[in-house]
Amino acid sequence: MTDTGSRRHFLRSSLGASALAVAGSALPLLGGCASAQPTSSILAPAPGARFARKGTFINYNEYPLGPCESAREALVEIIGHTGFYRFDLIQHFHDSLAAHLGVDAEQVILYPGSGWALELAPRVFTSAERSLVVADPSYEACEQVAKRMGTPVHRVPLLANGAHDLTAMCAFPDAGLIYVCNPNNPTGTITPREAIVSALANKPAGAILLVDEAYIHFSEEQSVIDLVASHPDLIVLHTFAKLYGMAGLRCGFAVGQGEALAKLREMGSDAISVTAAVAAQASIEDEMIVAERRAYNSGVRNDVIRWLQARGIECTVSHTNCFMMDVGRPGKDVAAAMASHGVHVGRSWPSWPNWVRVSVGTREDMEAFKTAFAAVQEQGPLAAAVACAPELRLCTAAALA
Amino acid sequence: MTDTGSRRHFLRSSLGASALAVAGSALPLLGGCASAQPTSSILAPAPGARFARKGTFINYNEYPLGPCESAREALVEIIGHTGFYRFDLIQHFHDSLAAHLGVDAEQVILYPGSGWALELAPRVFTSAERSLVVADPSYEACEQVAKRMGTPVHRVPLLANGAHDLTAMCAFPDAGLIYVCNPNNPTGTITPREAIVSALANKPAGAILLVDEAYIHFSEEQSVIDLVASHPDLIVLHTFAKLYGMAGLRCGFAVGQGEALAKLREMGSDAISVTAAVAAQASIEDEMIVAERRAYNSGVRNDVIRWLQARGIECTVSHTNCFMMDVGRPGKDVAAAMASHGVHVGRSWPSWPNWVRVSVGTREDMEAFKTAFAAVQEQGPLAAAVACAPELRLCTAAALA
Repeated sequence: MTDTGSRRHFLRSSLGASALAVAGSALPLLGGCASAQPTSSILAPAPGARFARKGTFINYNEYPLGPCESAREALVEIIGHTGFYRFDLIQHFHDSLAAHLGVDAEQVILYPGSGWALELAPRVFTSAERSLVVADPSYEACEQVAKRMGTPVHRVPLLANGAHDLTAMCAFPDAGLIYVCNPNNPTGTITPREAIVSALANKPAGAILLVDEAYIHFSEEQSVIDLVASHPDLIVLHTFAKLYGMAGLRCGFAVGQGEALAKLREMGSDAISVTAAVAAQASIEDEMIVAERRAYNSGVRNDVIRWLQARGIECTVSHTNCFMMDVGRPGKDVAAAMASHGVHVGRSWPSWPNWVRVSVGTREDMEAFKTAFAAVQEQGPLAAAVACAPELRLCTAAALA
Repeated sequence: MTDTGSRRHFLRSSLGASALAVAGSALPLLGGCASAQPTSSILAPAPGARFARKGTFINYNEYPLGPCESAREALVEIIGHTGFYRFDLIQHFHDSLAAHLGVDAEQVILYPGSGWALELAPRVFTSAERSLVVADPSYEACEQVAKRMGTPVHRVPLLANGAHDLTAMCAFPDAGLIYVCNPNNPTGTITPREAIVSALANKPAGAILLVDEAYIHFSEEQSVIDLVASHPDLIVLHTFAKLYGMAGLRCGFAVGQGEALAKLREMGSDAISVTAAVAAQASIEDEMIVAERRAYNSGVRNDVIRWLQARGIECTVSHTNCFMMDVGRPGKDVAAAMASHGVHVGRSWPSWPNWVRVSVGTREDMEAFKTAFAAVQEQGPLAAAVACAPELRLCTAAALA
C-alpha cells in the first residue's frame, strides 16, 4: 500500500539524510534494502546525543541496532501527526499484519508490548481452581501475575536439552493455562514443533496453550501461528521488541481464534501508539530484515559462546539473542562485577543461581563483554557486592525483562 | 536534568531545522519557548507526506497541533535509541512527573494512555455485588467494561448546568466505583471542586472515586490531585493525549495512594514507550504550554460556539476542547452529512440523540466546520444516510474516543 519508492527517495535526499542523521543517532544501521545502505554522513552523531548512555547494555534481550531504516524514516515522518490517535493507521497495520501472517484480521489483537498479553492471560484463563503451568527456568511474567492472583502454579524443569517438558506440563488436570516460551527466555533453547503439536492433542481439555514466540525470528524454527486455525485452545504471542529492534516503541500481538481470543480481547485491545504502528508496518514490509538480522545475531552469538567455551564456561544451546552461562559461583556477583567494568549483563534465575543470562549485542558490545569477563575471571571469587546498574524501583517491566 | 540550552541550540542549527521540517510535517507549531519560534523554513511539508489525510478531523477530542516543539525535538533524537526499552528514561520521567505534580513517585502509575486505567479500574473495584456509578452523558469506557463483566451500572443524568449530580451518584450503597469525568466528555461542562470534596466525605465507605481529568488543562479549574494525600479512596487520571497533543503516542497516568492504588498497580504498570516518555518529559518541562494552548483553544471554541448560537443552535457550556450542539434532529444524520463535506465531527450519545459532539480543532478547522455546517443546515432534514468516515472495525478505542 505504501509508496516504497518515494520513501527510498526520501532517504537519499539531503533533507532525509539530515533527519536520519538525528534519528539514527550514533548507532550503526543494519537491515533494510541493500540498495539504500546509509552513507557515512548519515551516521554522524546526533547533536547533543542527550539520550546516549555510557557502558555496554546486554541485559534486556534487545536488538541493539534498533528499528530498520524504513521504520526510522516512518518514525520521523509520523511525528507531526502524533497529535491524533490515527486509528486509521493502526487499523491499516492490523490488517496488513494479519495478511502478512496469513490469518484473518479478527484473529489478531495488538498490544503495547506483548507483556500486556502476558499480564492479562492469567487473569482470563486461570483462577484458584485453574492452575498455571510453566517451565523453569523461563520467563516469569505469567507466573508473577498468577501468584498475585492466588492461582496455583506448577513449575516443570526444562529437559536436559533445554526443551520444555511438555509431556509433564500437560499432565496437570487442573491446568487453565500452559505457558511455553519458544525459543525460551533465558536459555535460548528450542522446544520442537512436534512437541507443541503433541501437547495440543494431549493437554487437558479447555486448557489454553500460550506459546510466546517473542524470539522465534532469531531461530530457524517455524512459528506455530499456522496451527491456530485448527486449534481453538492455542494462542501465539509475538513482539516487535526483539529482532525488529522496537523494544522502546512497545508493540506486540496475540494470534488466536474463537472463544479464547474473544475472552482475551474483552480485557482491552489495539491500544498501540501510532509510532509503533507505522514502524511495525515498515518492518513487516522489509523483506530482508529477518534473514539479515538472524544471520548477524547468530554470527555474533556463536562467536562469543565459542570464546566462553574455550575458557571453560558452559553455555546453553541458544537459537536466539540470549544465552545462559554457568559461572560456577553466584551469578549475581558476577553480574555486579561485570557492571563495575561498564558491561551490564542479565540476571540469574533462582533455580539456576550460578548461571547468568547474556543478551547478544553488537559485535563491539560482545568484544567489550569478553574484555570485562576476562578481567572478572582473573579477579577470582568476589568477596563483596560491587556497584550494579542503577536501581530501577518502579518499572515492573524492567524487573522482568 | 536535561540540558535545555543545547536543545534550543539544536533547534536553531540547520541540521535541527531539517529534521524538524520532517518531524513537523505540514502542521503549524504552537506552544514552547517563544524565543525559539520556528521559522517558515521549518514549516515546509514533509517529503511525500504519506501520513497526511484529506479532510477536517474534529471527531476525537485531539489537540490538532500535536506535541510541543521540544517534545518533537526529543522524538527525533530518541528514534536511534528505540531498540532499547530504556527503563531509565521511563523512570526518570516517572520521577519528574511526580515532582511536577507535587506527589510521591509511588503515588503515580504510568499507562500507555489513560484508557488502560479506565479498562482496569472496573475490574479492580467493581463486581456483581459492587456497582459502577456513572453520569449520563459521559465517557463510557468504564461502563462498557462493567457491562462485559456483569457489574451493575447506575447511570445518573447530569444536572441542568452540566455538572455531575454527585449527591445522587453517592447515594448507591453498593457502589464500588464512582466515575467522574471533569471537565466532562462529551459536554465539556464542569463539576465544581467543592462537589468533589463533598462527595469524598459522603460517598459509601470503600467506594473509589475515580476522577478523570483528561481535559482539566483546557479549563481554569484546579486539579484534585492535591486531595489524594488525604483521601485514600480517590484516584485521579490524567493524559498527555489532550492539551499536550500526544494522542498518537499513548501516555497517561493515575495518581492515588495506599491500598487502592496498589490494587490498580497489580494489574500492570509503567509499560509506556520511551517515545511517549521523552515527549511527555519535554512537555512538562515546557512552562508555557498549558497557558498558551488553553488560551488558543478557548478562543477558537468560544468563536465557533458564538457562531452556532447566532444560527439558533444550542451548545453546552464547555470549558474544554469539545462541546455538544443540539441539531434538532438525529445527530448521526448530521454527522454523516458533515462527513460528506469532508468535515468529521464526533458522535451522539443515546440519551442525547439530537446532540452532536464537536471537537475544537485549529481556527482553520473550525472555519471548515462552519462552511460545512451552514451547507448542511440549508439542505434541511436528511432523507437517507450518506457516506460517513471510513469504518473502523477493530479498534475498540476508536469506538469510544
